[in-house]
Amino acid sequence: MATRAMRGIAASAGIANGPVFRYALPTLTVELRQMEESTQEWARLNTALEQARTEVHMLFKQARQSVGAAEAAIFEAHELFLDDPELLEMVQTSIEQKHYSADYAWQNATQSYAAQLRAIPDEYLAARAVDLEDIAQRVLRRLQGQSEHDLLLTEPVILVATDLTPSETVRLDTKNVRAFCTGVGSATSHVAILARALGIPAVTGLGKDLEQLQDGMQVLVDGAAGEVVLEPDQQVLDRYLLQAQKLAKQREIALAHALEPAQTLDGLQVELVANIGSPEQAVEALTYGAEGIGLLRTEFLFLERATPPTEEEQSALYRQVLQTMEQRPVVVRTFDIGGDKPAAYLPMPDEMNPFLGVRGVRLALQQREVFQTQLCALLRAGVGHHLKIMVPMVASIEELLAVREQVQQAQADLVARNLPYAENYELGIMIEVPAAALMADLLAEHVDFFSIGTNDLAQYTLAADRTNASLAHLSDALHPAVLRLIRMVIDAAHEHGKWVGLCGELASEPLAAPLLLGLGLDEWSMTASAIPLIKQTIRNYHSAQAHEITQHVLASCRNAAEVRAYIRAMSEAVHVQP
Amino acid sequence: MATRAMRGIAASAGIANGPVFRYALPTLTVELRQMEESTQEWARLNTALEQARTEVHMLFKQARQSVGAAEAAIFEAHELFLDDPELLEMVQTSIEQKHYSADYAWQNATQSYAAQLRAIPDEYLAARAVDLEDIAQRVLRRLQGQSEHDLLLTEPVILVATDLTPSETVRLDTKNVRAFCTGVGSATSHVAILARALGIPAVTGLGKDLEQLQDGMQVLVDGAAGEVVLEPDQQVLDRYLLQAQKLAKQREIALAHALEPAQTLDGLQVELVANIGSPEQAVEALTYGAEGIGLLRTEFLFLERATPPTEEEQSALYRQVLQTMEQRPVVVRTFDIGGDKPAAYLPMPDEMNPFLGVRGVRLALQQREVFQTQLCALLRAGVGHHLKIMVPMVASIEELLAVREQVQQAQADLVARNLPYAENYELGIMIEVPAAALMADLLAEHVDFFSIGTNDLAQYTLAADRTNASLAHLSDALHPAVLRLIRMVIDAAHEHGKWVGLCGELASEPLAAPLLLGLGLDEWSMTASAIPLIKQTIRNYHSAQAHEITQHVLASCRNAAEVRAYIRAMSEAVHVQP
Repeated sequence: MATRAMRGIAASAGIANGPVFRYALPTLTVELRQMEESTQEWARLNTALEQARTEVHMLFKQARQSVGAAEAAIFEAHELFLDDPELLEMVQTSIEQKHYSADYAWQNATQSYAAQLRAIPDEYLAARAVDLEDIAQRVLRRLQGQSEHDLLLTEPVILVATDLTPSETVRLDTKNVRAFCTGVGSATSHVAILARALGIPAVTGLGKDLEQLQDGMQVLVDGAAGEVVLEPDQQVLDRYLLQAQKLAKQREIALAHALEPAQTLDGLQVELVANIGSPEQAVEALTYGAEGIGLLRTEFLFLERATPPTEEEQSALYRQVLQTMEQRPVVVRTFDIGGDKPAAYLPMPDEMNPFLGVRGVRLALQQREVFQTQLCALLRAGVGHHLKIMVPMVASIEELLAVREQVQQAQADLVARNLPYAENYELGIMIEVPAAALMADLLAEHVDFFSIGTNDLAQYTLAADRTNASLAHLSDALHPAVLRLIRMVIDAAHEHGKWVGLCGELASEPLAAPLLLGLGLDEWSMTASAIPLIKQTIRNYHSAQAHEITQHVLASCRNAAEVRAYIRAMSEAVHVQP
Repeated sequence: MATRAMRGIAASAGIANGPVFRYALPTLTVELRQMEESTQEWARLNTALEQARTEVHMLFKQARQSVGAAEAAIFEAHELFLDDPELLEMVQTSIEQKHYSADYAWQNATQSYAAQLRAIPDEYLAARAVDLEDIAQRVLRRLQGQSEHDLLLTEPVILVATDLTPSETVRLDTKNVRAFCTGVGSATSHVAILARALGIPAVTGLGKDLEQLQDGMQVLVDGAAGEVVLEPDQQVLDRYLLQAQKLAKQREIALAHALEPAQTLDGLQVELVANIGSPEQAVEALTYGAEGIGLLRTEFLFLERATPPTEEEQSALYRQVLQTMEQRPVVVRTFDIGGDKPAAYLPMPDEMNPFLGVRGVRLALQQREVFQTQLCALLRAGVGHHLKIMVPMVASIEELLAVREQVQQAQADLVARNLPYAENYELGIMIEVPAAALMADLLAEHVDFFSIGTNDLAQYTLAADRTNASLAHLSDALHPAVLRLIRMVIDAAHEHGKWVGLCGELASEPLAAPLLLGLGLDEWSMTASAIPLIKQTIRNYHSAQAHEITQHVLASCRNAAEVRAYIRAMSEAVHVQP
């Protein structure tokens, strides 16, 4: 029996079925009008901004109750946009000098600002563009004297939309939402964040396939697989629902053993650590059994502000994470910024292909002052802790040697200033550029460790933008070409006695666990909440079996689908739930 | 003695020295004005367009005399923009409905059109954006009642500019230009084309380094190396000028032997073929000793038109090339289009990273009708000739198998229509995505040949946009990581008894010749005019020596600079001029 199905991005795990409810964004746009009375227009805008502030503050409180503080922070970001001096100045200039209507001036300025944000190759900031558009619409509605419509759901549905703004998402009556399916969006979009917070399955990035999901059509959503099955028959439904029960039970067991180590049936132990983006998440990571931090993203310190963070400011935040983790290892990635104009203090030219542009270490070596400040802050914070500095986007040995020099310079600077600094830190690089993987044997001499960034490595190896929904099928870290590169990296590092981590999404995919075991990965870094299940998955394997699976995959599988099918079959054969 | 030097893109070979003359583009911009009399504005624009047509036609005639017909065609492109219905309609709408002044409406429409062109990942079309801006400025000058200024050079200089428009370039008194240095631009920019046509050395893509070139400063330009030496002393000058003389002599000898085969001292013969973009170039290729066509680009048939080319139209053009080449092999690349909006009949969404987007085979498999028409046209044209069909941007085996299916479908279609078609064609793929190189052993089973596109392969392997001037140092095909991939590809193909070509710029770099010999490359495809010198270079080597060089480079060189230095040293040691 043929079943129609489509694949998107796995944004929130879980299985659900029900009728499709299509939701279309009503978007306001205004035409160019020029007005005599610019003072009056500016006053109108300020009234609308004030009303929007009140509304957003209420949404913030509502969100804090319904989905928690971290997610509610989205609305704090909205409030910041309403007070953004640069944005308001742009609007004021248009009103006063071009005599634009308040409505048009506001629309114009917010649209161009959002376009700027979108051009930055950072999923987090691209998502901020959606925030801005959301708040822009709110102000525009106020200017036009329109009120907000609630989306009323009277029965449980699978909510299907091209995209949902944070406002729409939080005002949803989620009791009646069984799953989300969206056209755009990534695993870090608001819908994804909300869905995970509420434990509702979600598949995003469905692109044009979304059009096939007609109002009322029965569908089944498998959030973990990123799959949507159209009009499943009872047999298919039963199979999925049984699987859902099994998964729930497995998750329960995994959580009960979260704090125990991850070791295979024959006693091989690997290190499971967390990817985090703020000091608060370090505390949370420990509760999930993280044995350290494998990736502390530091971008949050650098973006959306007018001046770079000071050495003291940075040092305090890094220290907070290091202290939380006590003697556990903490890998801090130096700033991974690039593309258009992430910050006023890092002016960069427009780039046609920002993912292939000046980002990561390339920017750090152009902006040496900013880089020096971060290195000094890190070395100061690392005293008495287990600090590991990791540099992103390294593509050549020159870059690595230049970084080494920068670190030595930072040390010399701290010595000159009579400040204590970590002497026993490690220095490593992300392997995310294919050239770095191909040259791993030569790079290994000059590092203490590698950490493989499979999301970017897959994107470059397949030459397929991982945020481009119509290429989601290509940019897959389980593609055998990517796996071959991972093998090269791990083998080269081990030959030089260095350890290798992996901090891409692949680490949190249960299906990939036997492969990563078989390849000899030392450190697995992932979203903290995924740690218990991956630990439990590892406990199901014998390392000889993992080796065998890996050998076969690397020798014979021609694509990611074959890799998945083979591992699934092998794991079922030995009664393992990968 | 330390010599300051900078590197850009090698755009036109040759060595020259002299004082820097900086030329800054005077660019007109107009402010938004709204006018009561839109009819009058539209009439003003039409007058300006008419004046521009006359000027451009004169430039065309001037260019044809001074630089030849092919280069003069640039101005025919200008004339097309002046009559572009889509562009004019956009301007008319702005004038009539938004009451914009003719000046502002024209500026607005041409700017947005140019931005669209730039977003397309095709060097040729990106260069068209410069054409459009050039003609846009000409019309704007007319609207503002300004006349054109000639750039007067009273003494021989090294002309330094951020960029030069075609108009500026052709009006130059080139007698007094010893070399060009530009900030933006690639090897296919107008300056590059003009410079090569006139035999003037040029280095483009110097980026921010350009600022170091101050008015009056003595510099030396090495166009073949893409190098600019600042304030060279007499010793350096003498060394370069001696080398220039040697090169000129070498070129003379090479031309005299252009029609003889390329074989090493020990009799190993390789195939030297040409990259071409039109049927006329096939004739030219033969005069340079091309033994076939290694890359016929077919984009010229598809771009800048409102409807796709018909099967008959395409077939006639392919046949023209095949007939010119008689029984010599002709490799035709199916359309390699992608990115933003190359043509009205191929609507595509905006992409954040068009080089990592839907292009090449990805687009062909989405636009099956257009692809089918091309395949049918090719198979019909190939009757009685040596046709090889080559598909760009293949990243996976699925894509290759889907292409095979499409070719079979095209055959079946021709059978059904009772039309004769080539039965003994070959089918191959470009290797330009790292994944394809890494999976070459599995892909080799399903192809007749590979052709390595080193420009894109280097760009993806190093994750560095090859048109981004500030990353020119990274995106280098002589990077050992790229060379390792090339070795994998050639070894895998030979194990399966398939041949391998290379059609990137690397093939025309004399320095790379021993490496490509040592790697066992079968077919070398390059700009026709480069063939004689590469043939001559190959004749200088013994294949055992080439092997030795290759072994050392792949085992020990850590970056492209070391590769270049080593080959240079080795070649000098055995009195070879690479």
